[in-house]
Amino acid sequence: MKKSLGAKPLAFPAPVYLVGTYDAQGQPNMMNAAWGGICCSEPPCVMVSAQHTRHTYAGILEHRAFSINLLGCEHAVAADYYGIASGRDLNKIEACGHHVSKGEFVHAPSLEEAYMVQECRLKTSIELGTHTMFVGEVLDVKIEVECLNKKGIPDVKKMDPLLFMPGAREYYGVGKFVGKAFAIGTSVKEKK
Amino acid sequence: MKKSLGAKPLAFPAPVYLVGTYDAQGQPNMMNAAWGGICCSEPPCVMVSAQHTRHTYAGILEHRAFSINLLGCEHAVAADYYGIASGRDLNKIEACGHHVSKGEFVHAPSLEEAYMVQECRLKTSIELGTHTMFVGEVLDVKIEVECLNKKGIPDVKKMDPLLFMPGAREYYGVGKFVGKAFAIGTSVKEKK
Repeated sequence: MKKSLGAKPLAFPAPVYLVGTYDAQGQPNMMNAAWGGICCSEPPCVMVSAQHTRHTYAGILEHRAFSINLLGCEHAVAADYYGIASGRDLNKIEACGHHVSKGEFVHAPSLEEAYMVQECRLKTSIELGTHTMFVGEVLDVKIEVECLNKKGIPDVKKMDPLLFMPGAREYYGVGKFVGKAFAIGTSVKEKK
Repeated sequence: MKKSLGAKPLAFPAPVYLVGTYDAQGQPNMMNAAWGGICCSEPPCVMVSAQHTRHTYAGILEHRAFSINLLGCEHAVAADYYGIASGRDLNKIEACGHHVSKGEFVHAPSLEEAYMVQECRLKTSIELGTHTMFVGEVLDVKIEVECLNKKGIPDVKKMDPLLFMPGAREYYGVGKFVGKAFAIGTSVKEKK
């Protein structure tokens, strides 16, 4: 039996995107965003939402660019910090003892401690209410070499991706392997 | 050291959203979508992307409504099937032995086997390339009562959410608890 929880932003799992930007003074910044996801295959696009009061909001519009940086579970404390403090007050990257490098394709910082970085050019944005959705075209994805398996495919165990559960407001890791996509579903018997 | 993988839709984790719609003939349908995510807190909004050739694409526009249905790992085979077969050819819900009920707030079917269902009214859509992004305003969230803990908060272990890893094209469950959000990050020492 189901029970109504009302109108809420609840869906599982949510990602932990660290959105990288340079502000007007050229200082790099990272913000933890759980409101985001991939939204197109070709051109590859990813969306992330931010409140207009956020330092990152101004940073994205300043250079019409951002990066999405993904951290493994070992960096959960820093990931959470990036969602609590503001880059308006201090350099959060320095506070975490983290390091950034310049983007190759866009003017946005890449977090060296991330297992994966997406360089995004702002494609469009939509005001939705408390949040503005920014859609970025992914111009390049960079991954730590050691996170690839022998076939050159991202290895879940090596990346150890961090994820977020809204409602419970908790971070988790990725767990048990359940099955291959576009494969296990073929066992469903279709009646003719 | 990082290596470029080129411009690809790669970010972890991706959700497994089953998008529920009624088609023009009134037949209910579900489609597996990994390109999606929460995109606004107030009003609560969720986005999901679909290719224009999809039966679901027409279904969303027909009634300007859809549901997001979340399945636990035990339903992974059915979840995958919903991404392989087309509702244009047959009733996928019947093929899975699943059941739907009518939405309470919008004209979209709710999957009874889902641990959680979001009822969404189409707010806007954007053509991005291969995919069209549909932004829905969440009018109600319903959850299986047994998936709530004593405090009325969604319990990760009881829901056992299914998630998708692009690139590897594999399904996984949620794993180890890592920490409380808006909490563990306060231990980062800020230099004054």
